[in-house]
Amino acid sequence: MIADTRTNAGVDDISVYRKLHMLADSPDRLVFAMSAGNLSITQAVLASLAEGLPSGDPDLPVRTVANAPSMFRVAQLVGEAVHEQRAVIAKALEESQLAPSASMLLGGRIGDGPLKLFRLYSEGNFIECQKEQPFLQIGEMKYGKPILDRALQYDTELSEAVKVGLISFDSTLRSNLAVGRPLDLVVIPADPQGHVVQRRIGVDDAYFNDLSARWSLMLNEARATIPDPPFMLG
Amino acid sequence: MIADTRTNAGVDDISVYRKLHMLADSPDRLVFAMSAGNLSITQAVLASLAEGLPSGDPDLPVRTVANAPSMFRVAQLVGEAVHEQRAVIAKALEESQLAPSASMLLGGRIGDGPLKLFRLYSEGNFIECQKEQPFLQIGEMKYGKPILDRALQYDTELSEAVKVGLISFDSTLRSNLAVGRPLDLVVIPADPQGHVVQRRIGVDDAYFNDLSARWSLMLNEARATIPDPPFMLG
Repeated sequence: MIADTRTNAGVDDISVYRKLHMLADSPDRLVFAMSAGNLSITQAVLASLAEGLPSGDPDLPVRTVANAPSMFRVAQLVGEAVHEQRAVIAKALEESQLAPSASMLLGGRIGDGPLKLFRLYSEGNFIECQKEQPFLQIGEMKYGKPILDRALQYDTELSEAVKVGLISFDSTLRSNLAVGRPLDLVVIPADPQGHVVQRRIGVDDAYFNDLSARWSLMLNEARATIPDPPFMLG
Repeated sequence: MIADTRTNAGVDDISVYRKLHMLADSPDRLVFAMSAGNLSITQAVLASLAEGLPSGDPDLPVRTVANAPSMFRVAQLVGEAVHEQRAVIAKALEESQLAPSASMLLGGRIGDGPLKLFRLYSEGNFIECQKEQPFLQIGEMKYGKPILDRALQYDTELSEAVKVGLISFDSTLRSNLAVGRPLDLVVIPADPQGHVVQRRIGVDDAYFNDLSARWSLMLNEARATIPDPPFMLG
């Protein structure tokens, strides 16, 4: 999962907010979420998840990411929080004729269960990442999608996939000022014993700067090797 | 100017419609327009321009692209048609809670005047292409914008610019099913004596297919030469 950190309420109101969040990190579970859209909704979702959602029975504990029995149930829980918090805030914004939206990516594993990745919509419903389309995006998706469409398959090596994800972000960073470094990155291998990578990539990150410069150079070289259109030669 | 030809009213209602239109081709003027957005608006705009807009004086002829004295006045005329036709159709769609929009690119030359390119918005106002941002887009812009941002400068050779435009369309075609060949292309050189190119690029166009295959191959090669992230090597 890779997220930028730029939030704006217009070009004259730009801030740095973390969009990649750890929801659980304990011996039996590791769950991360990324958010896009209305910041007041996504912050309220995180706060309500931290408090826990009502269990509906005073003898039972509140429902949290920490006690959900599976990733599917975590997605349902987060979806419920998104649905509720968005409804509250949409109601508050009704008079201003604003229809706020928020979306999330939710990924991780519970116990020995499989690693899962979900995309949650504003209404709280969600879809799961599948082999045929082995990536999900939220937020400013289009600038960076062509390289993902071309380069990512289900069996792409994880380090290659991270590289491709960073190339994709490089294109988005260049084309939209509302997307900016630092980037936050978390990599969870399929193997439960594998090494989890967490990293913040700032403006002085040597690897990202080298990747960006190389990619630019090679795109220029690639362009130069394509012949001019024959209908332009006359 | 390059336009695709795919129009849709939902994925189950896809048609081929020309989006690149010749508005004038006579010894003293050459004017083309491209349209995006609501097809009923853009067709009504073209029809009303063909009929001519009222001059407000029974002794004067209707106002047309053919008798406008400059490209700026052509842009004002087309903008007026967009504003009026959109207002009529927006009114008709009000009950269905639809807010239709349309945008256009307008380019060409009148007499010995300079070659001009404008982007018209739904409301009929417009901006002109300038040296600092030497291209304009309408419609499904984002997938194809990164390569334009990287590769186009004001002094880019015309044949190179056409090649880059086609590479940009190749990315958009791959990432959005709602964009499809044939593409329509017109190239007007700055030199009034230069050769104007008009071409339709179908699915069997050998140059485009070669460009697409080469670009794919070289992007793969370019990716392969970028080192894996050092934080993934552990």
